[in-house]
Amino acid sequence: MIAIKPDRLLADLRALAKFGQYKTGVDRIAFSPQDIEARQWLALRYREAGLEASIDRFGTVYGAAPGVDKAILIGSHTDTVPCGGWLDGAMGVIYGLEIARAAREGGGSAIGVDTVNFQDEEGTYLPCLGSRAMIGAVDEAAIAGAQSTDGRKLTDAIAGAGLTGEPRRLDPRRQVAFLEAHIEQGPRLEHSGNKVAIITGIVGIRRLRVVSEGRADHAGTTPMGMRNDALTPLLRLGTFVADRFTELASSDTVWNIGRIEATPGAANVVPSGAQLSLEFRDPDVDLLSQLEKAVADEIARLNVAGARVTSEMTARLAPTPMDGGIADTFERAARDLKFGYERMPSGAGHDAMFLATKIPSGMIFVPSIGGRSHDIAENTRDEDIVAGCQVMARAAELLVRGRA
Amino acid sequence: MIAIKPDRLLADLRALAKFGQYKTGVDRIAFSPQDIEARQWLALRYREAGLEASIDRFGTVYGAAPGVDKAILIGSHTDTVPCGGWLDGAMGVIYGLEIARAAREGGGSAIGVDTVNFQDEEGTYLPCLGSRAMIGAVDEAAIAGAQSTDGRKLTDAIAGAGLTGEPRRLDPRRQVAFLEAHIEQGPRLEHSGNKVAIITGIVGIRRLRVVSEGRADHAGTTPMGMRNDALTPLLRLGTFVADRFTELASSDTVWNIGRIEATPGAANVVPSGAQLSLEFRDPDVDLLSQLEKAVADEIARLNVAGARVTSEMTARLAPTPMDGGIADTFERAARDLKFGYERMPSGAGHDAMFLATKIPSGMIFVPSIGGRSHDIAENTRDEDIVAGCQVMARAAELLVRGRA
Repeated sequence: MIAIKPDRLLADLRALAKFGQYKTGVDRIAFSPQDIEARQWLALRYREAGLEASIDRFGTVYGAAPGVDKAILIGSHTDTVPCGGWLDGAMGVIYGLEIARAAREGGGSAIGVDTVNFQDEEGTYLPCLGSRAMIGAVDEAAIAGAQSTDGRKLTDAIAGAGLTGEPRRLDPRRQVAFLEAHIEQGPRLEHSGNKVAIITGIVGIRRLRVVSEGRADHAGTTPMGMRNDALTPLLRLGTFVADRFTELASSDTVWNIGRIEATPGAANVVPSGAQLSLEFRDPDVDLLSQLEKAVADEIARLNVAGARVTSEMTARLAPTPMDGGIADTFERAARDLKFGYERMPSGAGHDAMFLATKIPSGMIFVPSIGGRSHDIAENTRDEDIVAGCQVMARAAELLVRGRA
Repeated sequence: MIAIKPDRLLADLRALAKFGQYKTGVDRIAFSPQDIEARQWLALRYREAGLEASIDRFGTVYGAAPGVDKAILIGSHTDTVPCGGWLDGAMGVIYGLEIARAAREGGGSAIGVDTVNFQDEEGTYLPCLGSRAMIGAVDEAAIAGAQSTDGRKLTDAIAGAGLTGEPRRLDPRRQVAFLEAHIEQGPRLEHSGNKVAIITGIVGIRRLRVVSEGRADHAGTTPMGMRNDALTPLLRLGTFVADRFTELASSDTVWNIGRIEATPGAANVVPSGAQLSLEFRDPDVDLLSQLEKAVADEIARLNVAGARVTSEMTARLAPTPMDGGIADTFERAARDLKFGYERMPSGAGHDAMFLATKIPSGMIFVPSIGGRSHDIAENTRDEDIVAGCQVMARAAELLVRGRA
């Protein structure tokens, strides 16, 4: 029996939020003094809970259950975006602390609970640095080359933080599963009223830059038939996407045209150039390819009609399914606790994306008030924070029992 | 008989182009030293041609045929846009000089030829200042308030130029008609191969700013049905315009979406705002109203479907028809000279727009190489410059004869 203590969970979460506190949120970017202080505080908490605590050179904090050779690993990250929310990452980390602590208080078992706090999930220097390093998916060249948008080098940040510990690598013989909790960052749970979302997978993302070329002309004196307007083909493409993607989409598909512009950008000059960004996300790689083909076919059709439109893939992330057995375990845990639940994909990336390539991994989301995230307004009701931790603790218990 | 001298015409045009010469073009913005020097040079040329020359306080140069109480007025403007072309305005001014000069050389008649060089047609301080002042359509308050985009006041520009002459007002008992020539600023004559275009009227312009409001959301984690995307309604509106305006348009209608933008403008953020500029031009005011209504109806339809789109009219200029009798006279002149011609509206504004409200006015265009204008690349073949002047001289002759 892993009986978490709600008050202690919430008190630790609030204590963590003091490091880098900014109004109602937190500013704790990776390798900042407040980030490092938070990690040192956490390592102390791990030790107080009877775990073997370490911080490696990337800043990843690991708390290992003593006296076991197998463990369920639970955690997330405490680094934030600039002026971010107090729960993003932090909540999943404190779930790990509380469940590992409660598991030991409950007497332990042959399979223990380890807990982890990864570094730079938010990508100040290198997105998901900690989890990628743990699975051996980041090489020295990438580390040497990584720098922040304002030009600080990752290697300088590491040196400045005084971190020297040997990188902790995943050992699939020890860590038999990875569990991560997160706030939803969207409005679905708030709308459905369910306490918890069981994540089926992390969506794949394809992002295109679509560029159209034309010729600038005086918009008053050049007849329509003699123009080569770069913008209109992109307006048509955007309308096509709105219509055709709606037909092709699953209930999980999302897409966005977030940027569009015409040059030179004067009311009385025919656009000589235009471009837009289009991204689409879905857990199903086949559906992503179908959407990509629909766009390519429409661009080809526009070009046959005289446009000069090209597209370039600027980002392409494959979907990462979460482990089906772990998802079923989360479902059973939620049912045991009589909490409403639903399954959904994660529309954003998380450390579990990388752990899942090596060991069975699962995620849950708790409701996010107003769907806000990466903002100081980010928040979740205390009872929902507690409920999520109870579901995860129960799932860990079921996994331990099932594998013992 | 008004027999213009082609070599003299071209030599004067090239002499004028030296004032403010910039590479292959001219930089001679209103009231600049080079603008004032050009006007003084022109007044001298008027005097040499036997005309009574004057410069008023706005810089408008007038050359009056002596000994007559009626005259055909011919002219345009010598001010340019920054780094503009050598023919825009200047060609119409030198046509006036050459035709007034040739008319006197031909012995004159009871109806003379006056010539004029208006000021600031390009709107450095006040668009069409000279022609508006001549018809009494600009008051002292407008003059006191006018300033350039870089903050120079019109009154300071006038004082700096040392101009004090009483503004010359139009006297419809004297000036019985106004003729203006211009380069086409578009590609139609070059495509048709005709030597001259007879202008039916100056198009009306309506320009709208269309604004859409939405809500910013994470484009990965917010389901499509819970978004309020500001951009998609404008993409639909743009596609509607391309389709519906094509159906409603006359062969003279032109339209343009020259600016579009989404805010905040990130690939992974649902646009919270979007706006575009739409302008359309046509000589027919009823057709302009029909186009405007089509846009308003579509915006209403989009709003019924959930969008929050509004539009604001940022510019509205009524069409100005040119005089039908003068157009017929130009046509007869072109036929007499065996030059190919066609009728077309002017898609841009000219001084004739204001003269036409007081006296019968007409315009012709000559071919513009590549349709270029307001650019140092602007040019017209010498033989086309000469042909245009011959058509205008012949038309002046026919008008004098018809009215004598």
